[in-house]
Amino acid sequence: MEKITARTNDKIKYAVRLGESASFRKQNGEFFLEGARLCFDAAKTGVEIKQAFFTASALEKYSAYAESIIATGCICFEISGDVAKKLSDTENPQGIFCICKSKEKTEKLNYSGKYLALENLQDPSNLGAVCRTVEALGLDGLIVSGGCDINNPKALRAAMGSSMRISLVEPQNLVSLLEDAAANGMQTYASVPRSDASDIRKVSLEGGVIICVGNEGSGLSQSAIEACKDAVTIPMGGRAESFNASAAAAILAWELMR
Amino acid sequence: MEKITARTNDKIKYAVRLGESASFRKQNGEFFLEGARLCFDAAKTGVEIKQAFFTASALEKYSAYAESIIATGCICFEISGDVAKKLSDTENPQGIFCICKSKEKTEKLNYSGKYLALENLQDPSNLGAVCRTVEALGLDGLIVSGGCDINNPKALRAAMGSSMRISLVEPQNLVSLLEDAAANGMQTYASVPRSDASDIRKVSLEGGVIICVGNEGSGLSQSAIEACKDAVTIPMGGRAESFNASAAAAILAWELMR
Repeated sequence: MEKITARTNDKIKYAVRLGESASFRKQNGEFFLEGARLCFDAAKTGVEIKQAFFTASALEKYSAYAESIIATGCICFEISGDVAKKLSDTENPQGIFCICKSKEKTEKLNYSGKYLALENLQDPSNLGAVCRTVEALGLDGLIVSGGCDINNPKALRAAMGSSMRISLVEPQNLVSLLEDAAANGMQTYASVPRSDASDIRKVSLEGGVIICVGNEGSGLSQSAIEACKDAVTIPMGGRAESFNASAAAAILAWELMR
Repeated sequence: MEKITARTNDKIKYAVRLGESASFRKQNGEFFLEGARLCFDAAKTGVEIKQAFFTASALEKYSAYAESIIATGCICFEISGDVAKKLSDTENPQGIFCICKSKEKTEKLNYSGKYLALENLQDPSNLGAVCRTVEALGLDGLIVSGGCDINNPKALRAAMGSSMRISLVEPQNLVSLLEDAAANGMQTYASVPRSDASDIRKVSLEGGVIICVGNEGSGLSQSAIEACKDAVTIPMGGRAESFNASAAAAILAWELMR
């Protein structure tokens, strides 16, 4: 295993940039993963790991995880504790990092499937939480559009591996996807915090369904709302103006699968 | 309005420490609030504001909010932009900050009410999201115990004012509260990610109910689980091991009020 001890090593600089920049990830079709368990999840899920970085102590402490990662045949490097600190997002890095190939983007829907669609969700913790919900409740997939950066390191951490396991649909244009879905018999719903929208408990959730959830601050775009067949809402008994986006997504996904 | 231009001013140091330290907040019975809207929410909700700090530009930009805060009769200071940066948790502070009196702690339950109880929830974003859910769905209150630090600045921000409006119950001892609740006819449920627990859709949620949600990593303590009448779970169809804590809380609260 080649050793890297310089923070200025080109491979380290490349990895840091992958972690920091959404456009750099997009341009290179790769993403950066930190943590013993997450990197192991990538290996187990069949995500293509291109490079892996381990500190000597991590190779010992997380030997079972490290072996599974090394067994994928990726290029492996041993790094110093100082380099691990440079790569890490946390104060006490576990010392295992990977560069992974991004999944091929697909726009393909299962027209009889159940989906959540996220438009422009900004908070990576919310994004990760929604991925976990989609996996836990067994939805057919998650549609991500707009500024949803599923490979943001904080989103990856919050997703606890689920974003690598669920079926992701990444349309160029959410409106076109919704129109195509409706033309193929799917129910398409825009969730809005408006009391005149249909109660989520009272609409048909049979067959193929997409429920759209919008940005934390501004909600769904007008064009996405108009592209949906109906607007739905979670009736609010209290005085709050709205839910946290991932809490709303959880309730909607639960109704979808209930 | 007295002017403060030194970062080392004692009042500023006190405010910073309130924001940073849970034990200092507890010791002084006060908490620190940042943001034009949140400080306005405090004023509107009737939270006792002891001191308020404004930059000159904030007094102009957020004049309506500032006037409501000043009208509470609190001691007001004008601060420089540099001092605002010292006080702020964000890169571009809005320039409005308050020191508020913490609510009197209560252990009193409405025995016919619907409650979520949180034990040791660590992530302030989750805590804030649960407060919003409790308010939006109109639960009778939120029980917080263990390490749940409701006045953490990040939790306050995520709650968007809801934590100041909902009814909070803060027991010295969660187990004693659960036993008292059960003795007074309430249903008490421990939510666990275990498939042998009762399906949340199939248990009685009539009358007074408490559903307990545990720590993100380790779940509920054994003593809390044992103090509850039954263990409930959200059936998971997929491969994920569990939900994000605030997503689970949202689904459970929704079932409670559904």
